[in-house]
This record gives sequence, structure tokens and C-alpha cells, in this order.
Amino acid sequence: MKPNFTLRLRVFNLNCWGIPYLSKHRADRVKRLGDFLNMESFDLALLEEVGRAEPVWNPGWRWGAAEEAGRGFLPGIFNLLLKVWSEQDFQDLRQKLLPTYPAAHYFRSGIIGSGLCVFSKHPIQEFTQHVFTLNGYPYMIHHGDWFCGKAVGLLVLHLSGLVLNAYVTHLHAEYNRQKDVYLAHRVAQAWELAQFIHHTSKKADMVLLCGDLNLHPKDLGCRLLKEWTGLCDAYLETRDFKGSEEGCTMVPENCYVNRRELEQFPLGIRIDYVLYKAVSGLYISCKTFKTTTGHDPHSGTPLSDHEALMATLCVRHSPPQHTSSPSHGPAERSALISVLREAWTELDQGMAQALWWATITGYVIGLGLLLLALLCALAVGGGIREVVILLWTPSVGLVLGAGAVYLFHVQEAKGLCRARAELQHVLGRAREAQDLSPESQPALQPGRQEGDRAEEQ
Amino acid sequence: MKPNFTLRLRVFNLNCWGIPYLSKHRADRVKRLGDFLNMESFDLALLEEVGRAEPVWNPGWRWGAAEEAGRGFLPGIFNLLLKVWSEQDFQDLRQKLLPTYPAAHYFRSGIIGSGLCVFSKHPIQEFTQHVFTLNGYPYMIHHGDWFCGKAVGLLVLHLSGLVLNAYVTHLHAEYNRQKDVYLAHRVAQAWELAQFIHHTSKKADMVLLCGDLNLHPKDLGCRLLKEWTGLCDAYLETRDFKGSEEGCTMVPENCYVNRRELEQFPLGIRIDYVLYKAVSGLYISCKTFKTTTGHDPHSGTPLSDHEALMATLCVRHSPPQHTSSPSHGPAERSALISVLREAWTELDQGMAQALWWATITGYVIGLGLLLLALLCALAVGGGIREVVILLWTPSVGLVLGAGAVYLFHVQEAKGLCRARAELQHVLGRAREAQDLSPESQPALQPGRQEGDRAEEQ
Repeated sequence: MKPNFTLRLRVFNLNCWGIPYLSKHRADRVKRLGDFLNMESFDLALLEEVGRAEPVWNPGWRWGAAEEAGRGFLPGIFNLLLKVWSEQDFQDLRQKLLPTYPAAHYFRSGIIGSGLCVFSKHPIQEFTQHVFTLNGYPYMIHHGDWFCGKAVGLLVLHLSGLVLNAYVTHLHAEYNRQKDVYLAHRVAQAWELAQFIHHTSKKADMVLLCGDLNLHPKDLGCRLLKEWTGLCDAYLETRDFKGSEEGCTMVPENCYVNRRELEQFPLGIRIDYVLYKAVSGLYISCKTFKTTTGHDPHSGTPLSDHEALMATLCVRHSPPQHTSSPSHGPAERSALISVLREAWTELDQGMAQALWWATITGYVIGLGLLLLALLCALAVGGGIREVVILLWTPSVGLVLGAGAVYLFHVQEAKGLCRARAELQHVLGRAREAQDLSPESQPALQPGRQEGDRAEEQ
Repeated sequence: MKPNFTLRLRVFNLNCWGIPYLSKHRADRVKRLGDFLNMESFDLALLEEVGRAEPVWNPGWRWGAAEEAGRGFLPGIFNLLLKVWSEQDFQDLRQKLLPTYPAAHYFRSGIIGSGLCVFSKHPIQEFTQHVFTLNGYPYMIHHGDWFCGKAVGLLVLHLSGLVLNAYVTHLHAEYNRQKDVYLAHRVAQAWELAQFIHHTSKKADMVLLCGDLNLHPKDLGCRLLKEWTGLCDAYLETRDFKGSEEGCTMVPENCYVNRRELEQFPLGIRIDYVLYKAVSGLYISCKTFKTTTGHDPHSGTPLSDHEALMATLCVRHSPPQHTSSPSHGPAERSALISVLREAWTELDQGMAQALWWATITGYVIGLGLLLLALLCALAVGGGIREVVILLWTPSVGLVLGAGAVYLFHVQEAKGLCRARAELQHVLGRAREAQDLSPESQPALQPGRQEGDRAEEQ
């Protein structure tokens, strides 16, 4: 690496709103997105909500080798059942972008699919993914997040002798900000995301995270992620910003956005991000940052209900005045401790809620069993036969259904408990570090109650 | 780090066979295990199948803050429903081992729990975990693996200025070696485990993996793990071995072992491992390696149905004749390519099987819907009312049940497809590297069919 070395990295991010049936003008938007990406020729295009195709009969469709081999047991109409989960949009984009972006990957997970994919001008050295432990509830079918298997995807690229770890993610949606039943799950996801980045990027020279976090900049999950990983927000760091007001990524000007949902936020909301950091003697600056503004970059309808983000990052040797890694002074530690404490409380409340549901469903199981016993007694005693016949199967259904929900919430509580234990450990270590810097000791004494408990890891 | 520096690390591993109701003499064995660990004072004790406690009323029992806070909605008998998933054995051991092993962690996951835990003489700097995407089938209740949420746990320790990444894991059990329906899942787990280690240990000086892999040394999953991570097998590396014949970790002498299951293997089987590697100019040797031999180290019944492993590792500066990281010569590359190809085929077959099940359940859904339509027609037409009443709910149950199984197998196919894509990418890169070394080119031409396909990542 030469002393006057500069690496320029142009990055694109978009939540493509590619939900079949629900998303309007999907095919047209995907086509125009492909044209735009080809024209702009970014280094990396990271996309979310891609590849949820319609179950249309298409003999050229390929998902994997099972179909490629043309095995005889997947004939006719039942093939359609599989096609609904295919990644047709991704494959179409892949074909179209191949000359400009020779490397591409779709991160498969869940039932519907994570929707995460990436197109790269540079060869992808390695990739892997981590599916979030908690991701909503299977019985909230109308929200559907559980079926997507939301995840974080990791790509390792080698650029001019430097290792870039690029992450793409999409966290659980927020359906009701006033009464957000998914808050604990989103905080747990933000924590898992931060931990995944923390543990997999230790030898990377540069870290890039793009995606739809479904978190406003001041939200707990966003602060937790930034504080624990040390990632910088490209929108806040750049001096050359062009785009929507306050960098919003869902704006009322966008004709696909439900304006009622943005009533509280007349300018829109900022929930999509380009975050980055450099390690090991390097310094990254965001030269330019652009968003679309609710319209197509050229003409016609917007590319998605979200706005696209375009960042130009410059990587240089770290000048002496910049520390290459996030500093761990008393102020940073204090901010980390504060956000960890907040997250701990949120996860703890989520856990209590999960256990409450487990208890309620426990009662329902008991009730169902009681009903079954009563029906048995009635049948033996020669009671009203029709009533027994009518009620027997619903009662069995009740016990089985409640049993499934009970098990789900036990698993949920374990998942939250796991995240809380990891968080508590980091909190304990941050406090130990803080205790060694005497100037900040007195300020934090009142809030130490959780840390003072015997650590239950 | 001094030039003549030597670090001695004593490691213990045991699958504790702590399944409530099924495992004999559990409480007594856990007690004796605690005594033994205290007496031997290892640096690290990594345990599997711990903490599946009985649902016994115990007012002192603690799982997390929800109970600690004594919230009123978890009274009486329904508390028991939660206690079945508690980690009482782990908590008991933790209390007992606290003076010798001040640091401990239980890796929570799934419904029953991963059963993985660790006791350390040294402070734990960081920990996290990765739950395997595929882990058997929920409807195979009698096998139960799916409910455990099998995982790999990671601990980061700092020892004499060196970073040790210690991993503990437990893969899906093998119930029928002749007709192993879980083979593809176990191969996928071995791959995920290898990938997790690969991506999280890049800056570690030493890597240690202990656990019950449920894989024989020559099994595909075991070879895949070793080839991709470069981990060495302590049993094969040591010059001072004491213990069961051929290092077996399930032996017929053990009174808890079902001898019928070992009929094919008169000496027993080796499925528990201590694996290690050093990076960055270090060299690890296994000074001594011991296993128990089907009896208690002192007296009485064995500690578990598995044998305990005890290894003494010595970490030194790498002498010039040793390469510190696994070498990547043509022979190693060829072995890696061969095992990757084998794993690719196994995952591909697993995927075909998953899609086959998805198709079958698709047919069942269709059949159920047909039956429901028929019943509707009968009801409208004033047919035999009792038949309609009798068959309506079972038909709804059939459709719902088949729907759930269908979704599960779609998810399974996606998971296998994901692992296969990652594997294929590594295979492609290994081949590229091999193509640059001309001496090994001709030998591999015939088997290139998978790699020649358009990479469907």
C-alpha cells in the first residue's frame, strides 16, 4: 500500500419493496433498478426485499440442482408450490447486471427468504450469513416477518490489498410505533447484528454495513449498534449531501408510501443506513452522500417505497489527528454503558412478556385438558353424543395450538435471555474499565443495580 | 511474550448425558462431576448436555430477572411449566465450582436448551453463540434434537497476552447409521460450525474446539470441519495417550451405553473431540491426552454414557520447521476439494429429499382441501350430517398440519441450499488456486461437473 494511497468506494443501498401481490409495479421497478445500477456502475449494490417472486409457471426457472436435474417427482402444478419461494427477481437482475457486476449473491434463509442480496464489481472472496434468533411471531401471519428469516449477510472483499467486510441486513419492521410489540425483538436483532459484526470483523481493514434497520437514528437499537461496533453514519459524516430533507429514506413525496403512516413525521423517517468504520491505521471519509427524493432518478414512479442511498467513501491512511478505531475514552464508555443498560431493561421487559404469554398459554393448555377429560367423562357416562363429537376435535386443536404457542414463547424467552446475558457481560466489562478511570466513578453509582446482581450468565 | 515462552492449558470435555427422566443417576453423576472438576482444576471445562433439569418445585430456583423480580403472574403449578426448561444442573455446578472456576457460562437456545456450558479458571473476555439453521425435524419428537436448538458457543479468553477462541458444540445425534435421515443436516451443521470458526477466529492466536460432534473420525462432516478450519485432532497428535482403546468416547464397558447400538463397533466409537490450532507464529502440541474408560475416575458408575476427554496442550513459539497455520500446498488443496465435493453432493441429495417432502405435503394439502370442498357440498346438499360433523375438523387439521410440514421442508431446502452455495463458492476458489499450480491439474479434470455449472449463488 503506497503512502499516498486512496481507495474510492461507491456504494448503493435500497430496500426494493419486492413483496409479491402487495408491491405495486414490481416487475417494472426491478427492470428500471437494473438499468440504473448498470448505468451508475457502483462498486457494491446491497439490496433488501428482493426476490420474492410470483408463482408464475416458467419452465426456465431454476432454484437449485434438484430442479436442474429434472427429477421426475416435481411435476406440473405442484412445482408452483415451490416457485412461490423462488428468487426470480434476483435471477433476472443477476442476468442483467452480469457485465457490470460479475459477482452476486442472494442470502437464502427462512421460508419466504431473507430478501437480502448483493451485486459487486469486485470478486467476492468469502460470504456467510447469520439468521436472527428472534424475528417476530409465526402466528402474526399478516405481518409475515417471521416467515422471511431475517438475517445479516457478510461478504469479504479484497480491494487494493485491503480486506473489506461488507454487511447487509434488514431488521424486523415497526408496525405501530406507539405500541410496538416487536421492540424487544428488534433490540435483540440489533444486538445480534452488532455481535456478529464485532466477532467477524476483527481482522478486517474496513467495515461497511448497509440496510434497512427499521430504526430511527435515535432509537435504542440504532444507538446500541453504533456504540458497540463503533460504526459511523455516512449521512451524518458527509459534508456533501444531496437528497431528501434530513436524509429521510421514507418520505411522503413517494407515491408508494402510505402517508397515514407518516402522519407523525411530516418530513419522513430515516430508517435505511450506510454505516462504516476503518481499523488498523486507516481512515474513511464519506465524500458524497445522496438519496433519491421520492421520484425515479430519471422519470416515472420511484424505484421503491424506500429511498435509495448512494455513498462515495474514500479510504486513506489515517492522518495523525484521527484515531483509526473508535476511541474508548470515558465519554464513549459512559455512552456505551448507558445504552447497554437501556437495552438490558428492554430485553428484560421482553422476557417478562414472553414468560407471561407462556404462562397464559399454560393456563389454556390446562383448560383444554380439563375440557377433554370432561368430554371423556360425558362419553363414558352416555351423555349428549353430538356435543362430545362436536367439541372433541376443537379441544384437541386447542391443546395442540396452545402447546405450540407455549413452546414458541419459551424459546422466545430463552432467546431474549441469551441476548441479555451477552449484553450484561459487556456491561460488566465496560464498568470494570470505567472503574479504572476515577474521574467518571461518582456519576454512575446510582444506576448500578443490574450490574450488582450476581451475574446469572 | 518472552522468547522461551510456554503456555500450558489443561482442558476437559464431557457430554454429561443430562436428559431428565431418560438419563440414569443424573443428580449423583453431576455431583461427582463437580467434585472431580474441583479436584483436577482444569483451565477450561467444556460440557455438553447439561442443565436439562426436572420440573421440581424449588423456591430458590432462578432463571432470569422475570422470576427474580417475583412478578405475581407466575404462581404455583404453572411455574413448573417453565421450570422444565431451567438450567438447574448448570446452576448447581456453578455454585459448587465457583472457587476453582470463577467464570462460567451457559449457552441458552432452542426450547429445551443447547445443553452447552463452560467453566473457566480464567476470566471470559467475550462470548457469543451461533444456533445451527438445520437441526432435525420438529415432528420427530422422540428424537428431540430439534427442540434443543443445537448450537456452537464461542468464548474469547486472554491468556498470557494471547487470544484464545474456545468453541464448544454438540451436533445432531446419529440414530441409525445404516439409514441416517439426519446426514445432510449433520453435514450442514459441520459446515456452519466450520464457517463460524473460520469467520470469528481470524484474529485469534489459538483456536480450541471441544464437543460431541456425533461424527466418527472418517465421517464426511468431521473431514469437512478439519479440512476447512485446519484444526488438529488432539488424540491423533499426542504422543502420550492413556485411555480407552483407539480413543473411543462411547465404549461397551460403560454400563450406561446401550450395547446393541455398538454391535458394529466392538471397541466403541470416537465421536467426542478436542481439536486445536495455532495461528500467527505459534505452535501447539498435545502433551498428554486421556479419556476415562467406562468407569468413574475414582469409583462407582461412570460420569456419563460418554467418556470424558482430558488434554494438556502446550503453546510455544513456532519452531522454524513448523508452519503456524495449516499449509495450503497442492496435497491439502486436493484433499479440501475432494471433501468439499463430497459434501456438496450430500447437501444436494438432502435438498432433493426436502423438496420431495415439500411436494408430498403439497399433495396432502390438495387432498385435504378437496375433502373440505366435498364436505361443504355434502352439508349444502343436506347429506349425512354426522359424517360432515365427524370429518370437518380432522380435514381442517390435515390441511393445517400438512401446511406446517410443507413450510418446514421449504425452509429446510433453503437452509441446505444456503450451505451448498457457501460450499460451492469455497470449492470454486480452491479450484482456482489449484489451477495456478499446474502439477495437480490433470488429476482433477474428470470430477469438475459441479463447478462447471453456472454458479447459482
